[in-house]
Parts: sequence; C-alpha cells; structure tokens
Amino acid sequence: MKNGDKKHIVIIGGGFGGLNAALILSHARYRITLIDRRNFHLFQPLLYQVASGGLSPADIAFPLRAIFKRQRNIQVVLGEVNEIDLGQRQVKVNETTYTYDYLIVATGAGTSYFGHDAWAEFAPGLKTIEEATAIRGRILSAFEKAEVENDPEKKAALLTFAIIGGGPTGVEMAGAIAELSRHTLKYDFLNINPSLARILLIEGNDRILPSYPPELSQQAVHYLKHLGVEVLSGHYVNDVRANQLTLRNNKSDIKVPAATIIWAAGVGVTSLGHALQQKYKLDSDRSGRIVVNNYCQIPGYDNAFVIGDLAHFKPDKGDPLPGIAAIAMQQGRYVAKYIIRSEKGLATDFFTYLDKGNLAVIGRKSAVAYRGKVKFTGIFAWLIWLFVHLLYLVGFENRILVAIQWAFNYFTFNRSARLITYTGSPSRS
Amino acid sequence: MKNGDKKHIVIIGGGFGGLNAALILSHARYRITLIDRRNFHLFQPLLYQVASGGLSPADIAFPLRAIFKRQRNIQVVLGEVNEIDLGQRQVKVNETTYTYDYLIVATGAGTSYFGHDAWAEFAPGLKTIEEATAIRGRILSAFEKAEVENDPEKKAALLTFAIIGGGPTGVEMAGAIAELSRHTLKYDFLNINPSLARILLIEGNDRILPSYPPELSQQAVHYLKHLGVEVLSGHYVNDVRANQLTLRNNKSDIKVPAATIIWAAGVGVTSLGHALQQKYKLDSDRSGRIVVNNYCQIPGYDNAFVIGDLAHFKPDKGDPLPGIAAIAMQQGRYVAKYIIRSEKGLATDFFTYLDKGNLAVIGRKSAVAYRGKVKFTGIFAWLIWLFVHLLYLVGFENRILVAIQWAFNYFTFNRSARLITYTGSPSRS
Repeated sequence: MKNGDKKHIVIIGGGFGGLNAALILSHARYRITLIDRRNFHLFQPLLYQVASGGLSPADIAFPLRAIFKRQRNIQVVLGEVNEIDLGQRQVKVNETTYTYDYLIVATGAGTSYFGHDAWAEFAPGLKTIEEATAIRGRILSAFEKAEVENDPEKKAALLTFAIIGGGPTGVEMAGAIAELSRHTLKYDFLNINPSLARILLIEGNDRILPSYPPELSQQAVHYLKHLGVEVLSGHYVNDVRANQLTLRNNKSDIKVPAATIIWAAGVGVTSLGHALQQKYKLDSDRSGRIVVNNYCQIPGYDNAFVIGDLAHFKPDKGDPLPGIAAIAMQQGRYVAKYIIRSEKGLATDFFTYLDKGNLAVIGRKSAVAYRGKVKFTGIFAWLIWLFVHLLYLVGFENRILVAIQWAFNYFTFNRSARLITYTGSPSRS
Repeated sequence: MKNGDKKHIVIIGGGFGGLNAALILSHARYRITLIDRRNFHLFQPLLYQVASGGLSPADIAFPLRAIFKRQRNIQVVLGEVNEIDLGQRQVKVNETTYTYDYLIVATGAGTSYFGHDAWAEFAPGLKTIEEATAIRGRILSAFEKAEVENDPEKKAALLTFAIIGGGPTGVEMAGAIAELSRHTLKYDFLNINPSLARILLIEGNDRILPSYPPELSQQAVHYLKHLGVEVLSGHYVNDVRANQLTLRNNKSDIKVPAATIIWAAGVGVTSLGHALQQKYKLDSDRSGRIVVNNYCQIPGYDNAFVIGDLAHFKPDKGDPLPGIAAIAMQQGRYVAKYIIRSEKGLATDFFTYLDKGNLAVIGRKSAVAYRGKVKFTGIFAWLIWLFVHLLYLVGFENRILVAIQWAFNYFTFNRSARLITYTGSPSRS
C-alpha cells in the first residue's frame, strides 16, 4: 500500500492532546499531518519554573520532529492554519491545502482578559515560552530597579508582585516567586532586602484552588502564608495599568501599587477555535470552548474531532470537564483509538475521563493533591508531583537534566536560569 | 574602616576582563561597583552552541549577583553608563553618579559591518544571547520553510547557509551548522534532505584562521570539507540583502542566493567606548579600539584603565594584541593587582600576555590548536578544547550540566535546544 492510498489524518496542534493522538496513530497504517505554529511540544505545567528562573525553555520544550524522527508516515508542518472546511474536509496552511479523512482539532487555550485586552500589556499571561521569559525578565528587573531606586513609594511598588488567579498556575507561580525572593536572591543585593518583597495571590472565588476539596485550599493557604505570600480570596480585579492594580472586594475598591503583575486567571480559546465555532455556528460555552458529543466529535461532522482545552465535553453524569493536561492526553488517545476501530468497522464507547488525581505544588517541599477522596499534603504530595512530572517529560535526556537542575535548586536554593533577556533586540553596543 | 572610607573602584562591564578584575579586587579592602547592561556574565566562546541549538542560554550565562553573592563590598549595578568624566573621576548611570578612585573600562567589542549597517538586518552578528537565539530561529526556520516550499530555486536558497568571516567563530559556526544538518536533522523531514544543505564559509583573507599557523588553516579546511562545508577564502562581501549575498573575488562578482546569512566578520567597539574616545580625543586603531599604555592605562589618566576587546595594547616587541578572551582575563587580573600594589606604594611591571595557546573547534571531534610552536589537531585537540572550556565555565552546576548535554549530543547527535522562539511576541492564540 502506497502512502497515497492510506487514510489521511490531519491533527492541528502538538500539545498534550494532539501529540498523544499522533503517537498512537503514527504506529498504525495511516498518513498523518501534524500542524503546529511552533516547532516544539511544550510541557506547559512547568512554564512557571521558566518564568521564575528555575528551568531553561529547552528543558520543557521538545522538538516535534525529534519525537517523530524516522517515522515516515507522519509529516510535521510548521505553520498557522488559515481555514478549516469541514464540508470539503480541507485544512489550509498558507498556500497549501490538506484534504483529510479525519481531522483532530487540538489547538488548546489562550489567555482571556474577560474583555479587557488592554490589561495584557501590564499583566502578561503564562501560556508561551516567550511569555515565560518575559515574566522572568520583569520579575528580575523589578529587583534590579528597586536596588537603585531612592523613592520609597516607587521602591515598594517595585517590590510588590501580584499574581491574579488562584488556580494551580497562580498558586505555583506565587510559591516560586516567594522562594526566589526569600532564598535565591536573599543575599544578592546591598540596598534592598528581597525577602521583604510583597507577594499577593488574588482570587475572585472565596477560596483559592476552588476546584480542589476545601481542606486542600486551606492547606495551600497555610503553605503560602508560611512562604510569606498574602492570599486575597474574594477579591476581583477591577483595573490593571502600569504599576497599579485595582481590586474590589465586597466592601470597597483597593488600589495596589505593583510593578509586576501576572495574569493566571482567564482561559479563552485560540483564534482558530473561535473562527471554526463562528463559521459553523457551533455551540460553545461561556469561555468559547466548542461543545462536542460523547465521542469528542463536532456534532454533524463524524470525522472531525475537537479535544483538549478547546473542547467542551459534558459526560452523561457530572459537570463539563475542565481544561487540564490529563484530560487532553486521554482524549487524544481516545480519538486515535476511535479512528483505528472505526476503520476496522468497530464501534467505540463514549469517552470517559479516568481521573488520576490533581496536584498543585507550593514551593520546594509542599504540595496539595487528591485522587478521588484520598488527599495528600506536604512533602509526600511534593514527591508525588516530582515523580509524575519527571515521568511525563517526554525526552530521556531532558528528564535527567531537569532532575539534576531540580536537585541543585533544592539543595542550593540557586536558580541558574535567572537571565533578563529582551524580546526586542537590546540597543546594539 | 567603614565602607565609605575605602577606595572606590568602578568597573564597567562584567565580561571576561571586568569579571576577572572584580574577582581579585573583591577580596581586597576596596569598595567596588560593577556596572553592566546585562545581569549575567556571558561565556561568549560558546555562543555558537546556543545559535546551533546545542546549549541553552542559561548554560553559558552566569548571573553576576550569584557570582558575588554575600560579598558586601561589591555592588552590582544593572544599567547603561551614560557618561564617563575622566577629569572629575565620575561615571553616570541614569540619574546616579558614581565617583571613583580607579576606573576599569571593559565594555568589550560590538559587531562592525564596515560602514554597511543596513546589512545587519539580513546578517546578524553573534555577540549576545538574543542574537544567538535569533540565529537559531533563522537556521531552523529555513529548514521548516524548505520542507513546504515547491519552487526549486527558493528551496535551494532556503537550504543555503552563508557564514561570513573565517576566524574561530565563523569556523565553529560553520562546523556546527554542518553537524546540525548532516546528523541531527538528517531524518527529520519528508520533502527535503537536510544533509544536502549548502554551507559556505567566506573569508576575505587568502586562508581561514589567518592568525593561526598556515598548516592549521589547511587542516581546518580539511575538517570542514569533510563535514561538507564549502570554504571560500579570498572572497569579499560586496552586498548583503534579503536572501542574497554578493561576493567578489579577484576575478568577478558572484551572487549567492542564501536565506540564512551570519556575520562573524567585523569587530567594532561599543558605543560607550566610542563616546569616550571621541570626548577625550584618545588615540584609537582602525577598528576603534582605544590605545592604552604598557600598564593598560589611558594615557594621561593613570587611574583609568581600558582592558579587553576595547583596548589596543601594543607590547614593546611584537604586534598589537588581538581581542580574545584569554587576553581580557589576564588584563583584568593584571589591572586588579596593579591597583592593589599601587595602593601599597609599590610599582608594577608592564602587562605581558602569556600566550596559553589558541583553539578552534570544528564539529564534534575535530579541532586545531597551537601553543607557541606546538600544534595539535584532530580528536586530541578537541579533547583539550573540551577540558579548557569546562574548566573555565564559572558555575559548578553549569559545568556538570553542560558536560552532560555535550555527552548526550556527542553520542546521540541530538540537539535538544533547537527551539524557534520569537523576538516579538508570536501572534496571540
């Protein structure tokens, strides 16, 4: 059978969902085209480590071509999809048109500012490598500027770090900045004491980690307070501008002068996902996720699947699934198997999510975790976190390197990747 | 003795020269201010490894504050020097004025396009982390674009890589791109064969590595040819524009369509060095380096030193010293000792450069090296190179990490840091 005779599967997005689908399908007798805007798979759960100088971008990014090296039935295409035509079964990337037998859309989530896009400039999100290195630069620059600032008010604003959003990413980011300031940078400056930096974690809900059991939210607050993080739950963001954040709780407005503001709150959909939803008037939820059926299919288009953060999947019993890596991975594998079975004329059961547990890490030896009704906290939860993350890191080389860096960071409080680099070229010397 | 009573030494630049001066002076009883535009010391000789995806930026960049952690007599200032006043003994950084007893100017070299600054856009230099990651992105993007290009001429241009300048940096960069295309990426694409990429090394002189013994230049050409690099010595650059390079040899003009052009040729001085030279009408050489006396002093200003790539130092016997790391390091240490002795009322001999040898590496197991009249080639020279570079890498942690990455790269031909990142933010998803 020639390549041209094989069924053609187009996968858009090399994140957790798309990658897992491709890994299974590439061993079957199909021709696969994997399209991504980036040339690497990004291990997003560790982006906060890049943003806080603990890891280098390459430690958590894996070239897609390297993953599929020597597999001649999968073509990796670096490019942006301009258009999806579900009727003609076509996907366009620049001037090239790919006609598919099956389509898997797995473009993931973007950052949403709830209609306040002007806030993006002052409060970057944490979704891409570039955003992570930009945030790293902002955090480190704030300490540098505070060191040479004479005005006490400006100095205080420079030493205030506000993280908006009390989900796992916000909690992890707050813990990482706390450790950076309390330990790594402790003796690095002459005019300021980095340990006195004010770190705020802001959550609109009445508790952080709202999707976790309440006891774990409490335990996370306890760990964060121990690291010197001020936890402000029940506080909404009213305005974000340069060096100033305005919060609102049920009583009043609170102005917080802060030079560094990080947005870990709103999750939206990618522009491609939005365009697809608009074009075919697909049902979507409040955050723009496309409603799929029990097989992860776009209703009315049996050969087109949406998985991962872009998909709104509601199980027969229970709430719609949240946008987390584990679900994207399971959906990717499910859809791959669905296609393989379907080609053999076999039916496949509904997708069901097997919840393997949830984990949020706070600093260098604390975490909160639960699986079903079992809860873990403290260093034991942290060790689980360490083990799970190392296990999932794709490359063998990276896994060892990350482990070594972590070991060093752990024992020395050092963070070797704390470079201030520039998105624009720095003025030529 | 209070800090305020101590003699104040201002060092501008945390490169090889400034860092080595600071390391010695920080152990003496002085107050030191180390000013740099960046928050890290950069191990520039390995920048080409970042540009070719072998190492991460943080592997070769060491936070200055981490190096001087806990040394309370040294203040690291992140900032750009606006003005040097040799008469008033003052250095200005933004609004802050530093009055010094001794000044060490070690701002290093910039890239010079010999008056053709418009070429910079199409042929970036290799002096900063940002330039290295930008070059890495250009090289990898060229392969990606070639994979989806149908026009044979455009495809050929995309698979042509031109390195301008046959000094050690150019030779190393050409070797690294050759290995990337011949080995790392060999099986990564379906529509192109990366091994067939054309790699040109262009040198105006009649041989590459012109400062090396002629036999070693020949040997380097031999190694490069073995890797498939075309060496064009005796070729000058006449014009550089998007996707096209025009060369001139003694016969005619040659047009070379090439999407990726890297400038490893001209070395100029920093803008601060230039401003200083202009302000005080200091003698300078053709590339703008400031002529210093036998003590590395600015003539007429005994308490102001210029060292490293910015200094034009001519020994009593022999040619002016070239701009290489070993000389900057030795001058940094020399000037530190000069100051310490001077404060004790002791005279110091002229600076003399102890030549410990020169090394250029070509690919993963070849190098050429010489020390005095002794020459080394092949894998033995490569092992010396490996040893020397690991020895000089500042941080203990990084040294081990770099060694592990190298070992992996060596045995697997993998290059894990081959990410295409963007200097501007990629279009938001």
